[in-house]
Amino acid sequence: MAWEWCWKEELVLAADTRTNAGVDNIATFKKLHVWERKGERVLMLVTAGNLAVAQAAVALLGEEAQANRRKDARPNLFSAPNMFQAARVVGTALRDIRSVDGEALTASGDFSATLLLGGQIGKERPRLFLIYAEGNFIEATEDTPFLQVGETKYGKPILDRVAVQTMSLGQAGKLVLLSFNSTLRSNLSVGLPIDLMLYQRNSLTADGQRRIGKDDPYFRKLSSDWSKALRSAFAGIEELDN
Amino acid sequence: MAWEWCWKEELVLAADTRTNAGVDNIATFKKLHVWERKGERVLMLVTAGNLAVAQAAVALLGEEAQANRRKDARPNLFSAPNMFQAARVVGTALRDIRSVDGEALTASGDFSATLLLGGQIGKERPRLFLIYAEGNFIEATEDTPFLQVGETKYGKPILDRVAVQTMSLGQAGKLVLLSFNSTLRSNLSVGLPIDLMLYQRNSLTADGQRRIGKDDPYFRKLSSDWSKALRSAFAGIEELDN
Repeated sequence: MAWEWCWKEELVLAADTRTNAGVDNIATFKKLHVWERKGERVLMLVTAGNLAVAQAAVALLGEEAQANRRKDARPNLFSAPNMFQAARVVGTALRDIRSVDGEALTASGDFSATLLLGGQIGKERPRLFLIYAEGNFIEATEDTPFLQVGETKYGKPILDRVAVQTMSLGQAGKLVLLSFNSTLRSNLSVGLPIDLMLYQRNSLTADGQRRIGKDDPYFRKLSSDWSKALRSAFAGIEELDN
Repeated sequence: MAWEWCWKEELVLAADTRTNAGVDNIATFKKLHVWERKGERVLMLVTAGNLAVAQAAVALLGEEAQANRRKDARPNLFSAPNMFQAARVVGTALRDIRSVDGEALTASGDFSATLLLGGQIGKERPRLFLIYAEGNFIEATEDTPFLQVGETKYGKPILDRVAVQTMSLGQAGKLVLLSFNSTLRSNLSVGLPIDLMLYQRNSLTADGQRRIGKDDPYFRKLSSDWSKALRSAFAGIEELDN
């Protein structure tokens, strides 16, 4: 599993779709979920960790958002006045799930779930949060323009070297796919297709969604160009004396 | 912590020197150990995991090798007739340590130790083994010319892309240092200096040892050339449409 985001005025987020309970029990599940009210708000959630916990969180958040119209409804993704409050809504959902399933899960394994919530509400700037299983969260900033959850290590060196807040949306999309490309090559638990979302500031629509499968021409070209570029970069470095 | 090896007719091995018990408890310890009888055998051991277990293994192996002359001594690193038997000697040492310390360690945390043993004995080809905490082991082969232990993920994508068995010793040394370079940038638990050993087939000496510190001119140039090459490779890839 691997999920990564880049952040600046725009947002890029991506999630692979592989889940596994052992190498002989692999499945494809969407891990990128979107709530949209065109022109008013777009919220995007990426999940990592225990799939049952993640699905329960998504289901609960969806149910609550449906119950929006009731006056006494607690805050939900459609009623939250800003992204900070929306992150609290997600944190509260995780705590609810823990109160139901936590004891049983902790006894047999773990209650693991880490979520990324990105989006824009009204005139506020786009924001990106990483929400822990405990329900608390951190926000991406200028100093750290990307957040990752899941199988993060293989894809981190390229992000550490290249990611800057001033990248264009197309460059950030390219970087996220390169980072995934490294992870895909080195770890079987991460697999295509990748769900990718490029969010343009103030667009307030979820139109920038696409799914990248193994036959995607851009991704194929990127993989092969990058392999060639790395080998040639390697060849260009002076050899160690021996 | 991070350790990596490349393997072909020659052997390259490297180990950083940082150990930590939390980010506020960092120390420098050598993790690359060598036993040499010039012209007859060279054995090199790289350790990862619990430092107390690793040091106990190295101490025990050294003591046993000293006791070599006694007729009834059990096989040791200086008496093993080939690398496979030498790997068994190391595995047995780990099992001895577990029989003494295992219970206490398992109660409070873990008995973790993974070792790499490489070297050459007499006319046998150079060989490389990864020895598990349980004392059993695997050997590097043509299909998988490198083995890693410790903090392996950050440095693996470049190895996966570039490592081939036909590399020269100087190329393999360069590759191992590039792989470390990625890990050093992305994870504080791995730190300079790096102990590096380039072993030339049939040399049967440990002369190819060197220590690479932060002022090493080759490593500084490699780091800066590689960063530049990666950024330029990135710039050369087509942007994603949006």
